This record gives sequence, structure tokens and C-alpha cells, in this order.
Amino acid sequence: MAENGRKILLAVDEGDESMYALTWCLKNVISENSKDTLILCYAKPPRAVHTAMEGTVWAFSPDVMESLERYSNDVAQCVIEKAKRACKHLNDVKVETVVEHGDPRDMICEVAEKLKVDLLVMGSHGYGLIKRAFLGSVSNHCAQNAKCPVLIVKKPKPKGGNGKH
Amino acid sequence: MAENGRKILLAVDEGDESMYALTWCLKNVISENSKDTLILCYAKPPRAVHTAMEGTVWAFSPDVMESLERYSNDVAQCVIEKAKRACKHLNDVKVETVVEHGDPRDMICEVAEKLKVDLLVMGSHGYGLIKRAFLGSVSNHCAQNAKCPVLIVKKPKPKGGNGKH
Repeated sequence: MAENGRKILLAVDEGDESMYALTWCLKNVISENSKDTLILCYAKPPRAVHTAMEGTVWAFSPDVMESLERYSNDVAQCVIEKAKRACKHLNDVKVETVVEHGDPRDMICEVAEKLKVDLLVMGSHGYGLIKRAFLGSVSNHCAQNAKCPVLIVKKPKPKGGNGKH
Repeated sequence: MAENGRKILLAVDEGDESMYALTWCLKNVISENSKDTLILCYAKPPRAVHTAMEGTVWAFSPDVMESLERYSNDVAQCVIEKAKRACKHLNDVKVETVVEHGDPRDMICEVAEKLKVDLLVMGSHGYGLIKRAFLGSVSNHCAQNAKCPVLIVKKPKPKGGNGKH
């Protein structure tokens, strides 16, 4: 690895694929003694998605909205903590986190652009079955719309895949 | 870079984007003293594309077909040689080449699978304006269909991009 001091944005979510992408990235892209910055980024669902899921914007009382908000904060924290634990061995690599509400497709591309990252890494689907049904494949969208290089890491299927992992 | 001895497939074509992807990959993914294998892969257009371009399968005489074949061989050689020159400084990295006729979308995914590569790297569009119009975006297809991790490298637009490159 010739380059150092790069900014690498890693989109994490609740799924196994994003943890696999992180592990792969730590093995293959970021050396533990590099001066890279790894930015873990998690998109909490926009409130509109909570409501759109029921098809009725008026269906939830403020109490329910609040507990959904609390739930999504808990999930966010859990995902970010798990990702950070996987990065513990990185000596000189700075690990930062970005957690924001928003459609992950837009949010990830916007963060990538705003922070001028050198590389965006993500799992191949992302953002869970339910959200994916609403939002389409996050990785497809980002591969087409992010302005930086995009690395899409696929979790090999148990029966074969690419062998080594 | 913790890993070594990986197989990295780089899809090259006539365009600037694929040369940029190669340069980016050499800076960011492959260290010059690693034991990685870099496989440069180029898809020559299938004969059907030559003919489909005119909409008439019977339009070309064998002579014309032969000169098209010779032309596509020349282009292939030129592209591969240029890519190899960019890899000259790699000491221990093995550089191999694969040149085959075929729809690049399928050919690249098939080569990736057959050779059990650890990573597929490509430019963000690939395969020239004319072929792209016929075949759709090669990188989109591969990002969705290749079984290995896929790195799509975009050439920054001159007026901005991601700054560093």
C-alpha cells in the first residue's frame, strides 16, 4: 500500500454483509499502521420511512414516534459499537463515526462528497430487507452516484463464493 | 495491507477511465512488493456486435470481418501493452493477461469466477460510448453480478471530484 493518510468511508448497517465488508476492508485496504482515517457511517431511517411502512402518515402517536426514535438510536449505537470493536487493533488509523437520519442512498453519497473521501466501502445490499424493499439497493445507487471510487464487498455464499474467505 | 498473495482482476478497455482505475489500484490496493497477482483482462467485442452495429448480419464480407478481427486484435494488444507499462514498477507482483472475445459484462464476471479472484477492479463505465449504448454500463452489471468484491473507480471530473487525485 503506497498511499497513506486517505479517508475511507465505510457504510455500516444492521446486516452481516456490512460487517463482512468492514472485515474485508481491514484485511485488504487499510493497513493497521497506516495514517488513514476510517469513517464509519450509519444512516438512521428517516421518520417518513417509519410512517410510510404503515402507509398512513397519521397512524403513530407522538409516543410511538418517540419510541421508534429511541429504538433507531439504540440500533445505531449497537451497530457503531460493534463496528468500532472490529477496528480496535488499528494502531494509527483514526476511526470516526457519522450517524444521521436520512435515506441511506443519499446520505452516504452526501457524506462521501462532503468529507471528500478517497474511497467508499459498503456491503452489496445494505440496509436490511424491509428498508431495501422501500429504497432499492443502496449499493447500486451509491456505485452509480457517488463521485469517489466505490468498493462493494459481497459476502460469499456458504457453499462456495470466492474460496478464500 | 495485511493480506498478500491475492488475485486481483482489473478490467481494462480503450477508455481513460480504465487506465485511471489501474493507476488508482496500483496506488491504493496493490503494494509493489506484495505477492499479489494482477490479472489484466480485456474483452474483445463479440463478432455479433460488429454486425449488430449495422443492424444487418449479412452486411460484411469475410474480408471485412477479417479486418475487423485484425483491428480488434490490434486494439486489444495496444490496451494491454499500455496497462502493462503502467505496472512495470511492480517488483514481486505477477502480472497476467486474459484477452477473450465476448460481451464484457459476462466475460468479466466469468473470468472473475473461474480464476477465483479476490477483487475485481474496473472503471465506472467502461467499454467506450458505442459499446456502452449497446450493452449498458459494464460496471453496473458486474457490481451486481460478480460474486467477488467489486471496486469501481471513477475518474474525477476536472472541475472538482474528490480533490486528491
